[in-house]
Amino acid sequence: MQAVSSSPSFSLPNAQTATQQVSIALDDRSYSIAIGTGLLDEPALYASLPAATCALIVSNTTVAPLYAKRLQTILQQRYASVHVVALPDGEEYKTWETLNLIFDALLGHSCDRKTVLFALGGGVVGDMTGFAAASYMRGVPFVQVPTTLLAQVDSSVGGKTAINHPLGKNMIGAFYQPRLVLCDLTTLNTLPTRELSAGLAEVIKYGPIADMAFMDWLEAHMDALLARDVEALAHAVRRSCEIKAWVVGQDERESGLRAILNFGHTFGHAIEAGMGYGVWLHGEAVGAGMVMAAELSCRLGLVDASFVARLTTLVQRAGLPVRGPILDATDNAGRYLELMRVDKKAEGGEIRFVLIEVPGQAVMRAAPDALVREVIDTCCV
Amino acid sequence: MQAVSSSPSFSLPNAQTATQQVSIALDDRSYSIAIGTGLLDEPALYASLPAATCALIVSNTTVAPLYAKRLQTILQQRYASVHVVALPDGEEYKTWETLNLIFDALLGHSCDRKTVLFALGGGVVGDMTGFAAASYMRGVPFVQVPTTLLAQVDSSVGGKTAINHPLGKNMIGAFYQPRLVLCDLTTLNTLPTRELSAGLAEVIKYGPIADMAFMDWLEAHMDALLARDVEALAHAVRRSCEIKAWVVGQDERESGLRAILNFGHTFGHAIEAGMGYGVWLHGEAVGAGMVMAAELSCRLGLVDASFVARLTTLVQRAGLPVRGPILDATDNAGRYLELMRVDKKAEGGEIRFVLIEVPGQAVMRAAPDALVREVIDTCCV
Repeated sequence: MQAVSSSPSFSLPNAQTATQQVSIALDDRSYSIAIGTGLLDEPALYASLPAATCALIVSNTTVAPLYAKRLQTILQQRYASVHVVALPDGEEYKTWETLNLIFDALLGHSCDRKTVLFALGGGVVGDMTGFAAASYMRGVPFVQVPTTLLAQVDSSVGGKTAINHPLGKNMIGAFYQPRLVLCDLTTLNTLPTRELSAGLAEVIKYGPIADMAFMDWLEAHMDALLARDVEALAHAVRRSCEIKAWVVGQDERESGLRAILNFGHTFGHAIEAGMGYGVWLHGEAVGAGMVMAAELSCRLGLVDASFVARLTTLVQRAGLPVRGPILDATDNAGRYLELMRVDKKAEGGEIRFVLIEVPGQAVMRAAPDALVREVIDTCCV
Repeated sequence: MQAVSSSPSFSLPNAQTATQQVSIALDDRSYSIAIGTGLLDEPALYASLPAATCALIVSNTTVAPLYAKRLQTILQQRYASVHVVALPDGEEYKTWETLNLIFDALLGHSCDRKTVLFALGGGVVGDMTGFAAASYMRGVPFVQVPTTLLAQVDSSVGGKTAINHPLGKNMIGAFYQPRLVLCDLTTLNTLPTRELSAGLAEVIKYGPIADMAFMDWLEAHMDALLARDVEALAHAVRRSCEIKAWVVGQDERESGLRAILNFGHTFGHAIEAGMGYGVWLHGEAVGAGMVMAAELSCRLGLVDASFVARLTTLVQRAGLPVRGPILDATDNAGRYLELMRVDKKAEGGEIRFVLIEVPGQAVMRAAPDALVREVIDTCCV
């Protein structure tokens, strides 16, 4: 979904910033996230990667023309053969058929089991490249080079990889950690505005679930973020990665705490699946989903209406929808409930919601169907 | 490939034997292999399995009619809903399309991420069920209930799971350990003779690579094994699992030692791929492949010709081919080499052979193409 921006209005005065590092501590699967400008061309960052004969850059038809050649050039200093495969672009292609294009490329180029994969693109490219790396010859190393805000602050960090199934999002995948994540903020200059907003949804979520001081900061800096001020972006990406690293470091495989990162995602996944993958961007669905989850938290007596209003305003300022779509004209709430029951967090048919217990702290809870129906009826257009 | 035997001649006097346990020590992924008769109906064996609402038995169209109902009945004591999916039978179906039948069943029955999968069948069922378990919702528990000799002595133990790709065998998969392996020797009574022989190939391999006393024992008991003497089978399965457990416990992810378990498999995979999956059984290809690998070991000066002759005789007595097929009428050796270069053990295009260094001990080595060509020319019909 990423394209060359039609208005080259993002060359701001402070277009450079010092590179920062965030560490993910997971024993022998630990790794660093590097955040800064111009990282794509910084040879020192690639020096610690595993030696191999072969590397494969996985990108999509939108991002590859922008950045694949640059990454290929720098990787050729380290790997004898560096191949590129460009997947079709969009959530609707996050399927086995597309994944198989990666395996076809690997086997077609006789890539052995030391081959290093590079995911160059957004969340879809990262999720599919990660799952391909987890599965090719039962596991090869991979590196995330996220070029969207959403991927930089969320999906490229923490090792969740997956493809979609017609009956549910991210149903087939693996927990598989990258060796390195390179967040080159310069690549965000080519991100369409709609995608920038979608990424901000995953930035905003870290406030309500973990850090209200960050929510204050976001309220103060939303205009700068939308204007792609590189210092503001650097702070938003770093703080998001720090919070995610803290959560993932405690619960890599989502047996408990990690599920809080899915704030807004239970409603959001229903929107994505109900509308057809790719109609709403993931971040857009999470935006409306967070408002719905906050509303449910309020109706369960956890937070007050002013918190819901505050979050709604921030989501709206980010350019995101704050109301869910009608998925079924006759029984809209029933359709949402049906779709949410196949969410991975559901257990024995019971939907587990991520709710805000107090601002800055999340909790996993079930909720009565009748109350959930009220929320859906209130929050959908 | 397993069918009801047309001659019910396998009801031997000693049709019962005491249950034995072999442990696989892999930290928090440790588990037991239970070996004995009538295990399918032994409720105590299932008592330690994870609690869940849902279980799915994955079998194939040959094995399901024989045993699925019995397993389903006993599992219903523990799980509220127990579903069965029967895959098409044969190595040629070890594909993504077949794997997707498992995901369709899981999602169609709204199975959550605590669901326990049971692989009831041979190596193909076990490999696919294991990979489905590794990937469904990024990982659910699974149990191996192998009903072929090959699966009991080799493929169900050690956590290698995979599907094939048109360009190579087992190219897409995961290291993912089962929670329990149940080797019910009684199920071997329904195994066709050709499949019994194929299983013996993987039994025989443990002698040359690890234990010449076991090779002596096999030479003394080959007739009893072919007659399905249950005490002989129990010993063969237990000793095979012990050796495999010892190897896997030291090198779960095949970074070194574990590769010795692929003795005969580099030539064997070339035979399977070159003939088309399913034309030669895996064990048949390994049988001829072991003779070829022994011949290569001899030509490299590691073992003498009498060892090659001794192994060849044992492979032949097990009812297995001792010569490879002609894969290409004009350049047969060239075709074998081409196919072996995409083997997972190959690195940077160099084929890594598992060779016998001295009888009872294996080593990984490359070999000059010219010598490999001599071996292929000598060992193919």
